[in-house]
Amino acid sequence: MRVSPRLLMNKLVDIRSVTTLKDRVIPSYNQLPYSNLHNLHWPSDKPLQNIYVVKKPWVPDVRDAMMKFITFIHQRHPNCNIIVSPDVADEIAEETKESKQPCVIYSGKNSEIVQKTDLLVSLGGDGTILRGVSTFSNTVVPPVLSFSLGTLGFLLPFNFQSFENAFEEVYQSQAKLLHRSRLECHFTKKNNTKALDGDINDSRIKIHAMNDIVLHRGSMPTLTTLEICIDDQLFTRTTADGIILATPTGSTAYSLSAGGAIVNPAVPCILMTPICPRSLSFRPLVLPATSKIKVKVIGKEQSRTSNAKLTVDGVPQDYLNPGDEIYVNTETASPDKDTGIWCVVKSDHDWTSGINELLGFNSGFKGTNK
Amino acid sequence: MRVSPRLLMNKLVDIRSVTTLKDRVIPSYNQLPYSNLHNLHWPSDKPLQNIYVVKKPWVPDVRDAMMKFITFIHQRHPNCNIIVSPDVADEIAEETKESKQPCVIYSGKNSEIVQKTDLLVSLGGDGTILRGVSTFSNTVVPPVLSFSLGTLGFLLPFNFQSFENAFEEVYQSQAKLLHRSRLECHFTKKNNTKALDGDINDSRIKIHAMNDIVLHRGSMPTLTTLEICIDDQLFTRTTADGIILATPTGSTAYSLSAGGAIVNPAVPCILMTPICPRSLSFRPLVLPATSKIKVKVIGKEQSRTSNAKLTVDGVPQDYLNPGDEIYVNTETASPDKDTGIWCVVKSDHDWTSGINELLGFNSGFKGTNK
Amino acid sequence: MRVSPRLLMNKLVDIRSVTTLKDRVIPSYNQLPYSNLHNLHWPSDKPLQNIYVVKKPWVPDVRDAMMKFITFIHQRHPNCNIIVSPDVADEIAEETKESKQPCVIYSGKNSEIVQKTDLLVSLGGDGTILRGVSTFSNTVVPPVLSFSLGTLGFLLPFNFQSFENAFEEVYQSQAKLLHRSRLECHFTKKNNTKALDGDINDSRIKIHAMNDIVLHRGSMPTLTTLEICIDDQLFTRTTADGIILATPTGSTAYSLSAGGAIVNPAVPCILMTPICPRSLSFRPLVLPATSKIKVKVIGKEQSRTSNAKLTVDGVPQDYLNPGDEIYVNTETASPDKDTGIWCVVKSDHDWTSGINELLGFNSGFKGTNK
Amino acid sequence: MRVSPRLLMNKLVDIRSVTTLKDRVIPSYNQLPYSNLHNLHWPSDKPLQNIYVVKKPWVPDVRDAMMKFITFIHQRHPNCNIIVSPDVADEIAEETKESKQPCVIYSGKNSEIVQKTDLLVSLGGDGTILRGVSTFSNTVVPPVLSFSLGTLGFLLPFNFQSFENAFEEVYQSQAKLLHRSRLECHFTKKNNTKALDGDINDSRIKIHAMNDIVLHRGSMPTLTTLEICIDDQLFTRTTADGIILATPTGSTAYSLSAGGAIVNPAVPCILMTPICPRSLSFRPLVLPATSKIKVKVIGKEQSRTSNAKLTVDGVPQDYLNPGDEIYVNTETASPDKDTGIWCVVKSDHDWTSGINELLGFNSGFKGTNK
Repeated sequence: MRVSPRLLMNKLVDIRSVTTLKDRVIPSYNQLPYSNLHNLHWPSDKPLQNIYVVKKPWVPDVRDAMMKFITFIHQRHPNCNIIVSPDVADEIAEETKESKQPCVIYSGKNSEIVQKTDLLVSLGGDGTILRGVSTFSNTVVPPVLSFSLGTLGFLLPFNFQSFENAFEEVYQSQAKLLHRSRLECHFTKKNNTKALDGDINDSRIKIHAMNDIVLHRGSMPTLTTLEICIDDQLFTRTTADGIILATPTGSTAYSLSAGGAIVNPAVPCILMTPICPRSLSFRPLVLPATSKIKVKVIGKEQSRTSNAKLTVDGVPQDYLNPGDEIYVNTETASPDKDTGIWCVVKSDHDWTSGINELLGFNSGFKGTNK
Repeated sequence: MRVSPRLLMNKLVDIRSVTTLKDRVIPSYNQLPYSNLHNLHWPSDKPLQNIYVVKKPWVPDVRDAMMKFITFIHQRHPNCNIIVSPDVADEIAEETKESKQPCVIYSGKNSEIVQKTDLLVSLGGDGTILRGVSTFSNTVVPPVLSFSLGTLGFLLPFNFQSFENAFEEVYQSQAKLLHRSRLECHFTKKNNTKALDGDINDSRIKIHAMNDIVLHRGSMPTLTTLEICIDDQLFTRTTADGIILATPTGSTAYSLSAGGAIVNPAVPCILMTPICPRSLSFRPLVLPATSKIKVKVIGKEQSRTSNAKLTVDGVPQDYLNPGDEIYVNTETASPDKDTGIWCVVKSDHDWTSGINELLGFNSGFKGTNK
Repeated sequence: MRVSPRLLMNKLVDIRSVTTLKDRVIPSYNQLPYSNLHNLHWPSDKPLQNIYVVKKPWVPDVRDAMMKFITFIHQRHPNCNIIVSPDVADEIAEETKESKQPCVIYSGKNSEIVQKTDLLVSLGGDGTILRGVSTFSNTVVPPVLSFSLGTLGFLLPFNFQSFENAFEEVYQSQAKLLHRSRLECHFTKKNNTKALDGDINDSRIKIHAMNDIVLHRGSMPTLTTLEICIDDQLFTRTTADGIILATPTGSTAYSLSAGGAIVNPAVPCILMTPICPRSLSFRPLVLPATSKIKVKVIGKEQSRTSNAKLTVDGVPQDYLNPGDEIYVNTETASPDKDTGIWCVVKSDHDWTSGINELLGFNSGFKGTNK
Repeated sequence: MRVSPRLLMNKLVDIRSVTTLKDRVIPSYNQLPYSNLHNLHWPSDKPLQNIYVVKKPWVPDVRDAMMKFITFIHQRHPNCNIIVSPDVADEIAEETKESKQPCVIYSGKNSEIVQKTDLLVSLGGDGTILRGVSTFSNTVVPPVLSFSLGTLGFLLPFNFQSFENAFEEVYQSQAKLLHRSRLECHFTKKNNTKALDGDINDSRIKIHAMNDIVLHRGSMPTLTTLEICIDDQLFTRTTADGIILATPTGSTAYSLSAGGAIVNPAVPCILMTPICPRSLSFRPLVLPATSKIKVKVIGKEQSRTSNAKLTVDGVPQDYLNPGDEIYVNTETASPDKDTGIWCVVKSDHDWTSGINELLGFNSGFKGTNK
């Protein structure tokens, strides 16, 4: 483990290797009666112990919130351990110069953290959740308890001010969880070209999306035709600004702006929503969660500029050229890997409240001429 | 003139025949520079004198407002005369039992009122305006000053509380007016059938719409096909719940609910908006104000129930059957008849404010998962 | 059983009581790998035997098709029995005046037919399927094999011309089936009022919808407010022409015209699509199949005309008044009753083909000014 | 005038200076009765003489068409002169190696051509028309006669195969013309930054749009807020992929893909259509042609990447940053400059035909489940 010399000299923070912790515990999830939610249950002999805290970096308010959370855990749950990434450990060290007793935290490499984490706690916005979850991309994602600090959002059911109650419910196996499916995506390039970050992109790696996978013309004046296949059958060819493939969770993100329906996250499906299609009749679609979708960039033979930009959950991945293909499907389970993300929520009604309070859904007219 | 004996005995209200008033004065309208509005100008030798007050019937608040308005006119503008319809005269008589000095008002038959009215003042909602205006259906409509009493609306720029200022601006030729075009409609029936009100409908009479002319399947399980011609050329055939032909004024009424664009009333045009069409590609249309539109009910030969209901500004007119046709165009001028309605407004910005304040236009998201 | 004397004299058709047949066999349905379809399997010791044929009444082409089907079954599958309703038996009797050998068919009361039917064969359009299925409203619906006779439709995968192959696949347990969920609906009326057909409506009876349940203002000039609750929580209040609650199957019916998304029938969900809402922001919704939806007609107290018409799969049910409520949820299973309808289809690709061929989905532009 | 030495040696083509021609003639335009079209009229003493031919460069089919057109003019209208740009003169020289008699054409600098052109003939697509017209950006645009060579489009009423008739009608003052308005746009940049082409952009120059002016986030992950003012009043703030300001002509271009209404080119107006707005209630708008629209890029202070790309008729112009503003209005007339573009059309029905034949407007369903 990388430990900065500066931290070692700081007696107030005792940073230990995460490898010294006991291995992670995976809770069980039981469907609640008459509900789309599940109850999380820690084994009676293996209580929740190791908490991995992820946060928006270097924002004072968020750091303060983290310190409050850590202090609370150390005081009220001395058997629980706080895990953070090395750079967050740095922040804690700087922050705790005037603490009276040493604060013990655990850190280490991502691969080490993954082995030990029972619960993921996110402090910040959606990006923070996504980054935290991405650490667990090839293994089971631990349950996620996310707190908002000001910003509102569908993925942020809890205000940080009530963090103690929210944590206790998780600790005591009384929390309610919503399962959010993810999409997985990989792509093949006809010609191996340099990726966005300068490296050769290893397109075999699967990228996971909590919200959406987007092909967009980007700054090109026009997108060339895309060919869309569903379950190995040609579905349609479209010329458009782009196409969005979204989870139900993502139905209130970009897909909504592009005209897609609002889909409850408990509906197992994949949304296909076109962006400014050159057609009057490309109505948004809701496909089975089992669909295997392939989108091929067609383009004109001679055009050097006819390409499309692949973006996953708002993060640009690569530029695709004629002949390149993306493959999208709901995240597949494997023997050592469950799918989707278990998110702690307040109640069955979070979604309904969100639709009304966050989106301004169905705002009535204050007056018309009718 | 019909004068109820009861009123004659009431010494407090002196109801005189409207025929005794001098003939109406038609103001001139001059376009304001850099504006879509016009200035109304009363001739210097013929000031505004005869004011026809229309109101929502038998609502206490509205009656109170009317009495305030009449009192104000009598006190501040003794040369001005108040005209009301006979039934409103009744209301005034009942209301003024305890007045100290006789209140002089004028009344008479509609055809008599039309000859004398310089200004139309409306107290109530849109329906009140439309009823008042319909009195002038075959002659020039006087300028309209409309006050809202609680209800909000695009046609109600002035709150009654500021009625004095609003009236003074009109009186002193300082008011700003927006010209609202109207549609005119007549229909022909293949077989003369009884009209909605039991009479044989004289379909040669032109009906005028400030908002919209709607053909709707009504309570029929399904509408048969409609054939739409524009300027004598077949435009399209549609099977739908119905079709809306709207003025720009009507673009914020039913057409908006059916998915039509929002059109500023200063744009000379006719909107064609389908209602639940059996097509993915019947996008709402904006046609030239000069368009002549014919809609023919097609229907199946043998069907007795395949018909459509014609509604103008929300008022049912008749049921149409296969072979029946409606003809719609922008109101046409004639030597003795100007077109459209001149409405007193606050400023060029009334429409912009209305869009934002009345419709909840472009409400942002308070939070999403993007 | 009602048997018309005329039929008894007709020696060419031998109409027997359906009660003499052996009891119905319910096949098993096994999910096909990598597919949303299922395989139907008749028990090896209990092959398909009793075929209930429903048809569009008194249409020559459909009667001819039925006679071909009956002749085929009698010749190729002498162990199979044809069941028809008494009025269809009448048609057959008239039709077979010149047959050489007596044609044996079975008929009886609906309750008797239900006990004996292994397979439902539908000749006609969607209405025919719905009527046939409705006979089985309180018991397991048999698998449905439906043939189109000219008309195209999402529920009509097989052209009658290929009926022999389609039937053989069902007979030999090789057919592929799609499971279509249904909605069930009941309503309560604040005041017991006369139903549409003059009887007192027994609102406790559940009505089933293959496509949709619609509340619409009908011929009322305007709908009063509807209050929508989901899972016992107030979701929204809307003033609109109406509201559609649809199955995924119904997503290509009325909901599509009203602007709803296209949803694959394998997605377990309920669509909520507003009809001309008085709001810019009532986006269509896709809710979990487990949702319990209540819609209450609010209306104004004094209004006698503010009501809404309830229509299920296009069939008017009743007028609702302020205070009346409808309850909608996905059809619930009971010990003696499976849910939904098993429809024989051609392949996994039927839906994709339908979207493209029937709806004109994503028609490209032949030319624009771009 | 630049004349390539190679051309001078080619005896078959005689390229003369355009300055030797008589000055241009501007026809008069008279509105046709009961029509939105106008008749073009050449003065009886000054017939149409100088024809400026613009074409898609270096495409064999287009070159063949041009040669046919030139031959036709020289044979049938020996008094008429053909003007081309110098690079097209090159093409003609190469093409006419085997001609028997010298072909006389005129060429010169753009500023010289502008002085002499009576009629603009376009061979190609919309881009060709736009390029041709842009030569006349600060003076009266001559009438435009455009021929399609294969491609279909709203701006291409005439197939080249019927070019002789189409030309004759123009020559004999019998052609019908549609007036298409243009938008003009200029922008101001808070900090003078390098323009797209590396030069300092002289933003005072007005850019003209036949279709649309678009602000789009381009390849930015998200657009920062845009502030939209109409007639000096704040109209709305929007966060979106972008905004389209379009002419009625442009209503069938990008605005259509983004969900805008279809607007007949004879309606004087400006369309405002949002691209994927972060709002459920930003309905497309149709504003008066007299509107002055300002769009300001807001963006976050610290963001270096929050900018928007300005595109006019599909041609990228510049990147805008927070604080930068664009100003858009309908092209304004000046003493020496008429506005808009007079396009020769077939009839009043061109638009109606275009809607139906080019866009697949209101394609019916071949079948549904309703």
